Amino acid sequence: MKLKEKGIKVGVSNKHIHLSRKDLDILFGDGYELTPIKDLGQPGQYAADEVVDIVGPKGTIPRVRVLGPVRKDTQLEVSKTDAFKLGVNPPVRDSGDISGSEGIKIVGPKGEVEIKEGVILAKRHIHMHTDDAAFYNLKDKDIVSVLSKTDGRNLIFQDVLIRVSDKYALEFHVDTDEANAALLRNNDLIYIIEEF
Amino acid sequence: MKLKEKGIKVGVSNKHIHLSRKDLDILFGDGYELTPIKDLGQPGQYAADEVVDIVGPKGTIPRVRVLGPVRKDTQLEVSKTDAFKLGVNPPVRDSGDISGSEGIKIVGPKGEVEIKEGVILAKRHIHMHTDDAAFYNLKDKDIVSVLSKTDGRNLIFQDVLIRVSDKYALEFHVDTDEANAALLRNNDLIYIIEEF
Repeated sequence: MKLKEKGIKVGVSNKHIHLSRKDLDILFGDGYELTPIKDLGQPGQYAADEVVDIVGPKGTIPRVRVLGPVRKDTQLEVSKTDAFKLGVNPPVRDSGDISGSEGIKIVGPKGEVEIKEGVILAKRHIHMHTDDAAFYNLKDKDIVSVLSKTDGRNLIFQDVLIRVSDKYALEFHVDTDEANAALLRNNDLIYIIEEF
Repeated sequence: MKLKEKGIKVGVSNKHIHLSRKDLDILFGDGYELTPIKDLGQPGQYAADEVVDIVGPKGTIPRVRVLGPVRKDTQLEVSKTDAFKLGVNPPVRDSGDISGSEGIKIVGPKGEVEIKEGVILAKRHIHMHTDDAAFYNLKDKDIVSVLSKTDGRNLIFQDVLIRVSDKYALEFHVDTDEANAALLRNNDLIYIIEEF
């Protein structure tokens, strides 16, 4: 197996929600502004102080973190473990591709919203700055395989989507199920496989 | 990539506990006998009606299923997700290899036990009858890689231990994190990789 040189840092995504302007108004009150408390790996993205409760047909997950800034559509990203708890069956999707995905009820301090779609399992992906893409000889929407090396639980993630933008920082995003299966933690390094 | 023909059924192991005779006595009462309610994939193994509460430094997991029959040593098998909840850091181990693993408190209806070791993340493995091992041209303790094919989340599990006995039935055992990462369910088929 031949690996591309220079490992890529892991960012583990816990369950979280992006809100549309309209849903933020309903959940937190008209004209409400999110309170950034922590910058995320990708420039401009932040964890907000705000949380909401997610109510599924089989269970509730309280205090799910809102990420900012607001987006065009509300999107809830959960792991399969979370999905079992809620009793929903979301598809694996790229961020933003929510058509026909699962619906759910969202409860905030000022109101609640029932979304018809927007619940997804995020497809694992690597964010790359344009310069990184040149270094790795990859382009936006390429699919690669990645080697994760953890004693006794080595794993190869196939179906890893490459996302390229001059606004992105180099980072491999997985959800908590994927991270726990591979015993990966934030800032661990993984390697793109050049050749099997 | 060349796969060995004939897929192998997946068995997903949820958190569970095996009890020693001594600990069963303390937790459920002297001379107590487990009540089998469901046969497992491996001949002679069963899920018992009995459950115990597991108390870790950070949290409790109630109603953890006891598997029978009793074993030489008490052994609690959890996922990394469970381990975070409990606040323990168990190593990846083959079943039975508990020396120096994590301790925990176990609470039953008649008493409680504090084990000094016995908490592990089970190392993924394939049980094979001797005839299957001959078919696949493998022997006990071999390590293989396995392909899991699920739309959008194809994954290769490396470090898969082969266990051979004329008392075993053919089955690939993973924990719930590994199953959820790959979107695998009981009785799905995976394939041993013969050559990359």
